[in-house]
Amino acid sequence: MKQSNLLLPTLKENPTDAEIKSHQLLVRAGYMRQIASGLYSFLPLGNRVLRKVEQIVREEMDEAGATEILMPALQPSELWKESGRWQTYGLELMRIDDRHSREFALGATHEEVITSIIRDEVKSYKKLPLTVYQIQSKFRDEKRPRFGLLRGREFLMKDAYSFHDSFDSLDKTYETIFNAYRNIFTRCGLDFRAVIADSGAMGGKDTHEFMVLSDVGEDVIAYSDTSDYAANIEMAPVITKYEPSNEEAKELQKVETPNQKTMEDVAHYLGHSLDKGLKALMFKVDEQLVLVITRGDHEVNDVKLKNLYDASIVDLASEEETKQAMNAGFGSLGPIGVPENVDIIADYAVQSVVNVSCGANEDGYHYINVNPERDFMVKEYADLRFIQEGDPSPDGKGMIKFARGIEVGHVFKLGKFYSEKMDASYLDQNGKANPFIMGCYGIGVSRTLAAIVEQYHDDHGITWPVQVAPYQVHLLALNMKKDEQKELAEEIYETLKKAGIEVLFDDRKERAGVKFADSDLVGIPLRITVGKRADEGFAELKYRQSGDQQDIYKSDIIDTVRSFMSEVK
Amino acid sequence: MKQSNLLLPTLKENPTDAEIKSHQLLVRAGYMRQIASGLYSFLPLGNRVLRKVEQIVREEMDEAGATEILMPALQPSELWKESGRWQTYGLELMRIDDRHSREFALGATHEEVITSIIRDEVKSYKKLPLTVYQIQSKFRDEKRPRFGLLRGREFLMKDAYSFHDSFDSLDKTYETIFNAYRNIFTRCGLDFRAVIADSGAMGGKDTHEFMVLSDVGEDVIAYSDTSDYAANIEMAPVITKYEPSNEEAKELQKVETPNQKTMEDVAHYLGHSLDKGLKALMFKVDEQLVLVITRGDHEVNDVKLKNLYDASIVDLASEEETKQAMNAGFGSLGPIGVPENVDIIADYAVQSVVNVSCGANEDGYHYINVNPERDFMVKEYADLRFIQEGDPSPDGKGMIKFARGIEVGHVFKLGKFYSEKMDASYLDQNGKANPFIMGCYGIGVSRTLAAIVEQYHDDHGITWPVQVAPYQVHLLALNMKKDEQKELAEEIYETLKKAGIEVLFDDRKERAGVKFADSDLVGIPLRITVGKRADEGFAELKYRQSGDQQDIYKSDIIDTVRSFMSEVK
Repeated sequence: MKQSNLLLPTLKENPTDAEIKSHQLLVRAGYMRQIASGLYSFLPLGNRVLRKVEQIVREEMDEAGATEILMPALQPSELWKESGRWQTYGLELMRIDDRHSREFALGATHEEVITSIIRDEVKSYKKLPLTVYQIQSKFRDEKRPRFGLLRGREFLMKDAYSFHDSFDSLDKTYETIFNAYRNIFTRCGLDFRAVIADSGAMGGKDTHEFMVLSDVGEDVIAYSDTSDYAANIEMAPVITKYEPSNEEAKELQKVETPNQKTMEDVAHYLGHSLDKGLKALMFKVDEQLVLVITRGDHEVNDVKLKNLYDASIVDLASEEETKQAMNAGFGSLGPIGVPENVDIIADYAVQSVVNVSCGANEDGYHYINVNPERDFMVKEYADLRFIQEGDPSPDGKGMIKFARGIEVGHVFKLGKFYSEKMDASYLDQNGKANPFIMGCYGIGVSRTLAAIVEQYHDDHGITWPVQVAPYQVHLLALNMKKDEQKELAEEIYETLKKAGIEVLFDDRKERAGVKFADSDLVGIPLRITVGKRADEGFAELKYRQSGDQQDIYKSDIIDTVRSFMSEVK
Repeated sequence: MKQSNLLLPTLKENPTDAEIKSHQLLVRAGYMRQIASGLYSFLPLGNRVLRKVEQIVREEMDEAGATEILMPALQPSELWKESGRWQTYGLELMRIDDRHSREFALGATHEEVITSIIRDEVKSYKKLPLTVYQIQSKFRDEKRPRFGLLRGREFLMKDAYSFHDSFDSLDKTYETIFNAYRNIFTRCGLDFRAVIADSGAMGGKDTHEFMVLSDVGEDVIAYSDTSDYAANIEMAPVITKYEPSNEEAKELQKVETPNQKTMEDVAHYLGHSLDKGLKALMFKVDEQLVLVITRGDHEVNDVKLKNLYDASIVDLASEEETKQAMNAGFGSLGPIGVPENVDIIADYAVQSVVNVSCGANEDGYHYINVNPERDFMVKEYADLRFIQEGDPSPDGKGMIKFARGIEVGHVFKLGKFYSEKMDASYLDQNGKANPFIMGCYGIGVSRTLAAIVEQYHDDHGITWPVQVAPYQVHLLALNMKKDEQKELAEEIYETLKKAGIEVLFDDRKERAGVKFADSDLVGIPLRITVGKRADEGFAELKYRQSGDQQDIYKSDIIDTVRSFMSEVK
């Protein structure tokens, strides 16, 4: 492709609304443009990268035995009413009436449509298992679109759905797709983790998120520094063993702590470290008031509290509800002298504390030298806190570290959630009707593109891995007015094209400095510059990622490019 | 692909709502399913054909120098208000409010979005000409979706847009894309015509529709039986020379024609042929009343009337308006005794009639022996009628025939329609701002798929051309319980796959009759059946289109398949 004919508008400045590198660079380097908040057009280079990621996804999904289909974006509301999500999905689901006032959803996801198709078309266990996927634009009306492609309102997604007659069969397909995802993100050059995630309200069991490690990620991952273990931070169990203390128990004492509100305030005021205080938080678990006690240096993980109670809703109680129950505000809560209608639940770490402080359930006062079991009783000890860096990894191997991650993929065992609600069943070997057992599997294709840029850039621009780069070679002719440069560049261009190598030829009448800067910004892996030594048949080859460069004779170019490409792939 | 794992639900009966072959067969053969009126899901086989057509389109567009982009389906209403189409597009444009009550259109087409991008990004004539395209789902809320993929509400379209600094440059790109379209539809195996079409309200000049010849087409094409000439019927000028008659003029006479309403009634009642009567129709051309006179065997073409008056709106006058002006109803209108505020305009053919009949502008009466110029005067003679079969072709070569066509492509010179309204301009060589000159070019990708089926089917099912077939070979094992059949089929399957040939393997435990019927229905070009002679290493090869069949030894299969594929491509 000749650059003079290409819509490739590079910018000197970052767009003012772009907070993160992928957003800044994809706009500056001419890959995309915003049309409205959260809506982007992919220009030619952006579209090429998108197609490459899409093709990797397609190949690996096909290899995993899934077949591609294409469902419409417009979905009749009736299907969403069957699943119940018409009511529960909220404002993110875009809704539209047709000219006859019939309601439709703009596809945010396609569980309902595929379940209705399979319900109509698959009657027998003989056709199971069955996995289909599609690659298609999805719509979600984000409250606050941001971070460019990471949180947009229209985005390219690969969504897949599998149907089974047993959980064993679901487990097998889940594993197959899981491995396909590993291949996909590995082929995209990404540093990622498959992370144990929260199955949330969907009622499924296993679920993993594929997270690309990046400081701009919205999720925190807890991972082992030595094993494969990784989990969404709220999903990681704490297996720390707390050693009993040798310290002798002192006498309980009530002290004044005027205007000391936070754990840090109180610890500082009383002159002890954070872990020598107890934190007490009042929760409403469904309708039950629960006072949760943790060590002062720990944080309550409400997902664990929810699971402990097998509850539907867990919320912090309001200060008013708390005062009414305890006669004290948030700053002075503690486990001593708690009314009977409030459960006291404590994290395992609380079992081994000695002579700690805690709120006295009286505003402006704390106890010191508090000792569990002696001074207060606990209904149940449990794992209730967030894991922390330095905790042992839950798989017993290594130590936990934290990283932020961008979610690019999600695999999910749906079970019978949709098939039961939508009355979708097959006949088993005995002729008995059973609801399908289902799985679903998503990849954010356009988000993956942005995640790659987050991991592949430097101060000068993008540094694409060759397998997803828009072109493999960027050919620059420094001075198109000089015949020998123009001719050599044209010759190399034709040679590369003939060899099936994707080449972008900067044939513009621009200054060399502009061409170099644009080339670094655009980030094609190999740059071949035709300049001063053109008359000898020599060009300069530069590797975008390493910065290595060398003079190269024209007839050596193809072999060198090919060897580079085969290395990286 | 093994058929046992594939979502390929064939049906014995046509769906009740399917009126035409492509709709019937694509549903029956398991290529697609309807989700709601005008909305279809493409099942695996349908998706494969769609991708093949898409790939042909992509290759030819790239070859034509266009580059692929991807714009969002959601488009802010502001852009459509700039072009004026927010008001004029009507109910077909689907509109949706986001959570902040901002209005969006669901892309029916993308002139506004691309014009806004180019307006922002292309400042200089140096970047021109520039052609971009995308392949994407489009949305149009058809009043009456019908004919399956031919008139749906969400459909796959390739839309392209070109930008120029001169009409010459536009002409060149128009021709390039025109030729690309010829290549595309030829590669799809279609019998089509490039048809001169009406540029309508868009203000453009040249426009061609690519029409696939088919009885189910909604448009009528007038084409020459000897040359390339083809036009939408309302666009074809009539160049017939009407010979003056030798017949002597007789005396004008008024006769009673009680209850004779239509031209046919009157001609029959008066005992003459249709061409010996004059037809008079009252039109409102903008605000002017115009009585249009044609021969009784001709039909008024209101596009020609509109062009003659250079009018905005042409409509038949109501019977009430007509009575008020003429003192007579529709059945008795004629050119004699017409009030001065009504223009009389006649088709060229009227110039040479002699002793004809016409309405007397008095209900229940006609004149006979009417002669133009003697009995009535005409403000202007012009070409005002529809061309008919048997008329000479407007290019002077051959005779006109009619055919019906399915519009699968459209190329259009937009000129400055959008760039002027949207204030999109470039700087020319003198630094002066000029509005871009634009072209647009569409292909209905999913509609092309249906058009192919309209031309490629027989009584048993679809008969795909190999270049767009979902698979190239359909491999049938008649009895999977017989080891030698199963083994030979598996061997052939692996061999074909290894050779890069796309093969669907019917490994189901179904009766041979079911497999044959399904195979004919699905329509893959080559069928290889492993049956009785499996132990000798022989299978049966059958060509779906010709029905020819032969026994084939296993080691000859690859060569035979390859030679078939190379012939057809």
